[in-house]
Amino acid sequence: MTDDSPTRPVLRLKPKADARRTRHGHPWVFVDDVVADRRSRAIAPGTIAVLEDAERAPLATVAVNMDSRIAARVLSRDPGAEIDAAFVAARLRTALAHRERMFDAPFYRLVHAEADGMPGVVIDRFGDAAVVQPNAAWADVLADDIATALVELGLTHVLLNASGRARSMEGLSDETRWLRGGVEGAIPVPMNGATYMADLTGGQKTGIFYDQRPNHAFVARLAEGAKVLDLFSHVGGFGLAALAGGAISALAVDGSAPALALAEEGAAKMARTADFATRKGDAFDVMTALGEAAETFDIVVADPPAFAPAKPALTAGLRAYERVARLAAPLVSPGGYLTLCSCSHAAELSKFRASCIRGIGRAGREAQLIHTGFAGADHPVHPQLAESGYLKALTFRLLD
Amino acid sequence: MTDDSPTRPVLRLKPKADARRTRHGHPWVFVDDVVADRRSRAIAPGTIAVLEDAERAPLATVAVNMDSRIAARVLSRDPGAEIDAAFVAARLRTALAHRERMFDAPFYRLVHAEADGMPGVVIDRFGDAAVVQPNAAWADVLADDIATALVELGLTHVLLNASGRARSMEGLSDETRWLRGGVEGAIPVPMNGATYMADLTGGQKTGIFYDQRPNHAFVARLAEGAKVLDLFSHVGGFGLAALAGGAISALAVDGSAPALALAEEGAAKMARTADFATRKGDAFDVMTALGEAAETFDIVVADPPAFAPAKPALTAGLRAYERVARLAAPLVSPGGYLTLCSCSHAAELSKFRASCIRGIGRAGREAQLIHTGFAGADHPVHPQLAESGYLKALTFRLLD
Repeated sequence: MTDDSPTRPVLRLKPKADARRTRHGHPWVFVDDVVADRRSRAIAPGTIAVLEDAERAPLATVAVNMDSRIAARVLSRDPGAEIDAAFVAARLRTALAHRERMFDAPFYRLVHAEADGMPGVVIDRFGDAAVVQPNAAWADVLADDIATALVELGLTHVLLNASGRARSMEGLSDETRWLRGGVEGAIPVPMNGATYMADLTGGQKTGIFYDQRPNHAFVARLAEGAKVLDLFSHVGGFGLAALAGGAISALAVDGSAPALALAEEGAAKMARTADFATRKGDAFDVMTALGEAAETFDIVVADPPAFAPAKPALTAGLRAYERVARLAAPLVSPGGYLTLCSCSHAAELSKFRASCIRGIGRAGREAQLIHTGFAGADHPVHPQLAESGYLKALTFRLLD
Repeated sequence: MTDDSPTRPVLRLKPKADARRTRHGHPWVFVDDVVADRRSRAIAPGTIAVLEDAERAPLATVAVNMDSRIAARVLSRDPGAEIDAAFVAARLRTALAHRERMFDAPFYRLVHAEADGMPGVVIDRFGDAAVVQPNAAWADVLADDIATALVELGLTHVLLNASGRARSMEGLSDETRWLRGGVEGAIPVPMNGATYMADLTGGQKTGIFYDQRPNHAFVARLAEGAKVLDLFSHVGGFGLAALAGGAISALAVDGSAPALALAEEGAAKMARTADFATRKGDAFDVMTALGEAAETFDIVVADPPAFAPAKPALTAGLRAYERVARLAAPLVSPGGYLTLCSCSHAAELSKFRASCIRGIGRAGREAQLIHTGFAGADHPVHPQLAESGYLKALTFRLLD
């Protein structure tokens, strides 16, 4: 199993680095833990290499990026693994088998990076189209092989969406282009009985967020006959799911006019235009205005952008989450529900929850916590990165 | 709002106790924080009293039990609240409204103690029957009022199930008797498309565990065509749900013959007797035997009793959870699923998860964590006790 090709470069751990971490399955090797000599510094980003311990025993096949804090990402614990189209195809088949078991329709996150054995790579599927986010250098190099493997699985259109914060941390440039086929306009996405419009080339990230699917479903179950407020709605994630679950009306608030236009298009596809309203604006301003007007809703949802994406922003981020809770709680009718979400890596569950509870308390409301949800099962977590689960959705019932 | 009856006893906080805790809504006052003089020591367990701060300002209406570590449980933040049949009825109505919104059929936990404003009291509903667990002294005193209120809500049979560890911590004696009506034999309980048999007077706790409902549902969604092993099955919680979700077979393992008999009765009601097998025995022994026989299953679930109910048992408990994971992982076929549960208060999520991941790793299996679940929405959590969520269910996919 150690028959690695003689031309494959070698990256070596420093003597003080803990090789057991890799042996126990951790998918990342930090740049401070590898020997950074002239030879290793010359390895081009995205190169496949053999990781060795300080005693030169091979540990794994890795993708190298000496420009990143994560100098090596483990692609296989077999140090002689071939990393080629067949490797990519095998990983995709394994990932697909799980999604086909979980979901009735081909709309899901097909590959969720490390946990699916494709470190740094995210692939979302929209029927016969896929959006590939190669947030690690090796995937840039193998992008065409990924597209080939997706077509072999039966997909027609493959968009490379190489942009965003994760790439800039890897020292990678931005680029968005069709690798195979091409789709004009927005794609209707069925989820939880609702229809969302995903604009693959113009929208935020990959056009729609699949991660909230189980939390949308939970809110939809509460929605029979309810009047719903969906704050930071994007393309209408919670609001349209609530309508599908029996809500009588939903008001979606977002700062993005294009996102609200897609939400309205989704409501039209559901033949619920009459029950769906949108308001473009800053959600904090809208909450304040609704509060001053003493408007109430049976269900209020706030799914803001990451207020605490990384540790330096944590204190300010937690204050922002508390403020959302404090402004949203008065808008919930007695016995109604308040769902508060965070997609901040740095705001771990107990801290985020404490901020929400403080905000609700400051609003003078008594509450029960009835549900804690995370990202859906098409967003698996690598066991060694389990602390990093980023998405949390808390549903409270407000009693008085 | 402070017109408390002149005859109501007073319990006072010590000067060094933090009155803000109560003002911020914490439902418990510990015995070390109250003045324990001759007068307070003479207050009979279950007596309704006024809690005052050290400056004699009234804080809340509480139920006193000087024999418990929790000397006072807050019944109302109004120091003059009447605690009577009408109080109980109002709390039950509020609790019922939430359950009726969440569930199609009247089978659920109707009251979940502190979070439902009835500290220490648990009420499970089985159609027109209810099981009341008065795990705090005040509820013993008001048991008849609780039964009256339940009958007013339309229930016919009310069982008082006054037994278990929670009561002994309160210094309360055991007693089980029908307060209203009475049911002979086991009651069929519909849940997630399966049928469970609940034996209210003979079974463990209240005859069935509603808390795992969403986790049963998650496993059921994976079960199409699967061969399932349900370890520590009790009355067949995961196994019967998996059959309802399309599993081709389920094997339930438990140490209790009466529990397995009820599981078989449930399978018979579902007309799935041919697909359902039981094995009475120690689950560790059965796992070892199945492993030696190299038997595998598409889905393996282990829902053991609390190995770490309290802090002194934590280290040994976490080792036991790791052992379950290590013995169960080899029984999962490649690409199959492993669901590991803990109902231990002391084993918090990150510690329990780490034990599971270690056990899976020691079994030589690579895994993805695809789902983290808690107790269902009929088990609300009091915001000030949110750290205490006891039930966790982790579903891993084992890759190789």
